[in-house]
Amino acid sequence: MSVPVTIEIAARDGEARAGLLRTPHGGVETPTFMPVGTKGTVKSLTPGDLRTIGAGVVLGNTYHLYLRPGPDLVRDAGGLHAFTGWDGPMLTDSGGYQVFSLAKTRRISEDGVEFTSIYDGSLHTFTPELTTRVQEDLGADVAMVLDECPPSGADRKYHAESLRRTARWAERCRAAHGRWDQALFGIVQGGLFADLRRESLERTVEIGFDGYAVGGLSVGESREEMLQVLAGVAPQLPAEQPRYFMGIGDPVGVLQVIPLGVDMFDCVLPTRLARHGAALTAGGRVNLRNARFRRDLRPLDPECGCETCADYSRAYLSHLVREDELLGHRLLTLHNVYFMTNLCREARRAIVEGRYKGWSRNWISRYTGERTSTGQI
Amino acid sequence: MSVPVTIEIAARDGEARAGLLRTPHGGVETPTFMPVGTKGTVKSLTPGDLRTIGAGVVLGNTYHLYLRPGPDLVRDAGGLHAFTGWDGPMLTDSGGYQVFSLAKTRRISEDGVEFTSIYDGSLHTFTPELTTRVQEDLGADVAMVLDECPPSGADRKYHAESLRRTARWAERCRAAHGRWDQALFGIVQGGLFADLRRESLERTVEIGFDGYAVGGLSVGESREEMLQVLAGVAPQLPAEQPRYFMGIGDPVGVLQVIPLGVDMFDCVLPTRLARHGAALTAGGRVNLRNARFRRDLRPLDPECGCETCADYSRAYLSHLVREDELLGHRLLTLHNVYFMTNLCREARRAIVEGRYKGWSRNWISRYTGERTSTGQI
Repeated sequence: MSVPVTIEIAARDGEARAGLLRTPHGGVETPTFMPVGTKGTVKSLTPGDLRTIGAGVVLGNTYHLYLRPGPDLVRDAGGLHAFTGWDGPMLTDSGGYQVFSLAKTRRISEDGVEFTSIYDGSLHTFTPELTTRVQEDLGADVAMVLDECPPSGADRKYHAESLRRTARWAERCRAAHGRWDQALFGIVQGGLFADLRRESLERTVEIGFDGYAVGGLSVGESREEMLQVLAGVAPQLPAEQPRYFMGIGDPVGVLQVIPLGVDMFDCVLPTRLARHGAALTAGGRVNLRNARFRRDLRPLDPECGCETCADYSRAYLSHLVREDELLGHRLLTLHNVYFMTNLCREARRAIVEGRYKGWSRNWISRYTGERTSTGQI
Repeated sequence: MSVPVTIEIAARDGEARAGLLRTPHGGVETPTFMPVGTKGTVKSLTPGDLRTIGAGVVLGNTYHLYLRPGPDLVRDAGGLHAFTGWDGPMLTDSGGYQVFSLAKTRRISEDGVEFTSIYDGSLHTFTPELTTRVQEDLGADVAMVLDECPPSGADRKYHAESLRRTARWAERCRAAHGRWDQALFGIVQGGLFADLRRESLERTVEIGFDGYAVGGLSVGESREEMLQVLAGVAPQLPAEQPRYFMGIGDPVGVLQVIPLGVDMFDCVLPTRLARHGAALTAGGRVNLRNARFRRDLRPLDPECGCETCADYSRAYLSHLVREDELLGHRLLTLHNVYFMTNLCREARRAIVEGRYKGWSRNWISRYTGERTSTGQI
């Protein structure tokens, strides 16, 4: 049986990798930022917009899609690709993260996790078998195993038990998974404990997946702790397979995890910022509600090649954002997703040309420096 | 001095006219539905979307733009065209209608009308001179005179005095208007009184404008009353100039005013319906929240040529609308504006081919018939 999703490493710069991810719905250059299409839509954007932006893998949330509109409907529509109109690569999470971060009540057992819906309080149970079947119905190119994301502050004992249960769940996911045209990725847990991370990694790799994710980070720990743990895990993951860091999407964070050998990452930050009227620019994060943009007729980011920066002024965007106009939300989402996509393109070029370290240091210093000096958020 | 906006009548079918409206920002085939871009944006759509749809004239609301972001900023940005990125024909109203329909308090005098802002309660005064200057700053292809839209239930005496003051205001607008590249349209008032309408028409035409609008209708009277009054006014307007009926945008209404000789009309209905999850289709108005659409994998309107109908299913649109996703709002706005634009194109063809009466009767019967039989809203 051929492997549905593979990665070919085109260049290395230290641990950083420039690759080509191949999926049944096309290839994606890595490292790649994956925009989040929570409920089957990347907030306000069409698939056509995403194609124009050059987006690679689009992420869907199994938790939300399972509850609304339901996997049966999506399956009957021909899968998430046909349902949403996005014909490029797609990845679904298992829903586990949302169960642990959103649900008011949950109860974990060996069998799975019982939780209440954020929509109507109804009771549901995710088992490894169910989330695997649901993801097969959704039909993304990559499915994820069901894992537990332990609460912040959980102790060593909790993490040890949790990662072992997660490994047993991963094994059940592997056994339940049958779609030949869909990859299944394992997830390494273990909190901030280096040895537990190692144990989780070994157990997960032993089961054998088409790719590996690092989960349970970027959930409240300091950035230093996060990077330290990731540095211990990422380079140990199988070199010939894709590596996915779950839940990072700020420009600096992305540039910090890439040199640890990560190929893929996702985060709602760029789309969520847009909802709040904020934009990512080469000079730092800015909020269009800020008074200084009211009469500013320059482009949002003069160096950016997106439609928003080509066609509109800061003053117009500021007006739209102040008036809560949908177009403002849309144009900022477009820009922020483009910005992250383009940042990854630049990072890849730097890796290929063997100058990642210097390039990323300069980039970060400009991004954070201007932010401090002008009081941007 | 050459006239900035003209109409050339290509064909007549009874009183119905198929024309070509020429403006400094391009030509538009008439009859034409003008989508409303209240605050400098047609809710959720980009100028590129509007071009793809084939939209003709886009309307801007002086009341809103005067208060936010202010005419000085728009002027400094190069006018509403440059500010918003829409480079096609544009029309601004005088703001009068909003003053009379939105403001909590207002005080009319011979000089103008004092009102409080819906945004912050601040006090403002619109005079004919001011609204003309503001519209010159906004720089649309067509500006409108300041008129009073009397309260519904106003008596004959009120209407008589009001239309005479509106005529005096129109004269002051005419005198104040100086932009050679902008047309100024007069507005006929007079309520439901045929003789007062006649008087208003005569006074307005006597002043002399580049085009004429019929105002103060579609404001609560019955459809029959509206059509009766319009039938008495529209055909009497100068035949060689554009005729604009203010405030109609439902498909049936549009098809009813076209045979009275109207060339242009505007209404927020198609964009407002989209906000509420409703769509216009050949078979009637439908609401995507309706349970029958949940699993319906057919296009929204199988006969429609818009992007929404080409790329998405009713089930997906229904999902987006139920989840209050911005993309749902966007795709329905796109469809509804396309629908009205296309309806006008079909109406024009029927006029040119001399079959308007039969065509529109069939169209209306299908639109309203299917609605009744299937319980659509």
